[in-house]
Amino acid sequence: MDKKNKKVILEPEKSKKYFYYYPQLVVVIGVRDGDKVNFMPCVWNTGLSYDPFLYGVSVGADRFTCKMLNNVNEYSINFLGFEYIKMIRSLGRSSGSYTDKSNEFNIGYSESVLINAPIIDVAYYSLECRKKSSELYGDHVLFVGKVELMHLNEALAEDYIINTKIVSPTLYLGVDHYIAADDNSLISLKNLPFHYKTGEKKKSKK
Amino acid sequence: MDKKNKKVILEPEKSKKYFYYYPQLVVVIGVRDGDKVNFMPCVWNTGLSYDPFLYGVSVGADRFTCKMLNNVNEYSINFLGFEYIKMIRSLGRSSGSYTDKSNEFNIGYSESVLINAPIIDVAYYSLECRKKSSELYGDHVLFVGKVELMHLNEALAEDYIINTKIVSPTLYLGVDHYIAADDNSLISLKNLPFHYKTGEKKKSKK
Repeated sequence: MDKKNKKVILEPEKSKKYFYYYPQLVVVIGVRDGDKVNFMPCVWNTGLSYDPFLYGVSVGADRFTCKMLNNVNEYSINFLGFEYIKMIRSLGRSSGSYTDKSNEFNIGYSESVLINAPIIDVAYYSLECRKKSSELYGDHVLFVGKVELMHLNEALAEDYIINTKIVSPTLYLGVDHYIAADDNSLISLKNLPFHYKTGEKKKSKK
Repeated sequence: MDKKNKKVILEPEKSKKYFYYYPQLVVVIGVRDGDKVNFMPCVWNTGLSYDPFLYGVSVGADRFTCKMLNNVNEYSINFLGFEYIKMIRSLGRSSGSYTDKSNEFNIGYSESVLINAPIIDVAYYSLECRKKSSELYGDHVLFVGKVELMHLNEALAEDYIINTKIVSPTLYLGVDHYIAADDNSLISLKNLPFHYKTGEKKKSKK
């Protein structure tokens, strides 16, 4: 083992939080229940299935947004660029239970096409989701949404993956720290041999 | 709306894959079933609960690793630095059904302390997990693991969050593209007022 990678072994302490699994990409959930519109950033989000296209967001069970998501069957998932980290933080460090976040933080939004949920105007990518299921895991609820429609920054639609020269996705590192992706580090391994062996020397090929 | 953010609306096509929700951090799952040891990278991973500490990995239902995870009750989740992207890709673009990946790609590993699963030596962070539940969502199975023990690069243990000057976490952008976090972009918003209003001018405070 690399000496630089000497390890310590830690037993997770109850009610203590660990953030070593970050950075992870942040999304902002948009939801409407009756007259109430609300937004909440969510770092615990992930793809769950290609076909059908399912996406998961895990929300603290005691969050106001969780109660709203329990009441409704539709919501949006919005991806915002790194220039909006202050807005994202504000949305996360406040509660819809006592404030109208869209008004308080000047969140411009439009209506969804197929569902009843707000789509954030400045998002470079938004998903219109219908709630397929929800499951309580520990102190969070995982909402599984079927993606019905996608709103995408037109310039991004030219490629299959995010063009990090056009948008800078927002990554969360924990404890109010944010970090961006390094466009200069981008590397494609598409053309490597299918079975690349670590440490193998590059061989000339005919 | 910002003119630069003109949007197109796309209906997800059946059996087509979309990658605009990337970059996301990659982990490598380690599993042992009898004599068989196997490793598989997983981009669809997320925290699920603080207390208990639960972590989720979503694995294609037709993957060999999924079959192994169905058979066992324990597995590891390993976080590798950006210098190992070729190893990660190889682990993802091959199958344990026909190869011994640890041998084929020279993956050094040690034994877990509390469970029966391999811990990758060069990982900067590894989780020993006991499977709490598994749930089929579409074409993937979400395995929910209770984190029993953590192995952490000693130098990282000095802080609550990942020190990106010490390790460079691996982010996946889709279609064999990898990207690193930009250490220079790191920003802490801890000291912003709790309710930061977008566009609000900084005010002097007494």
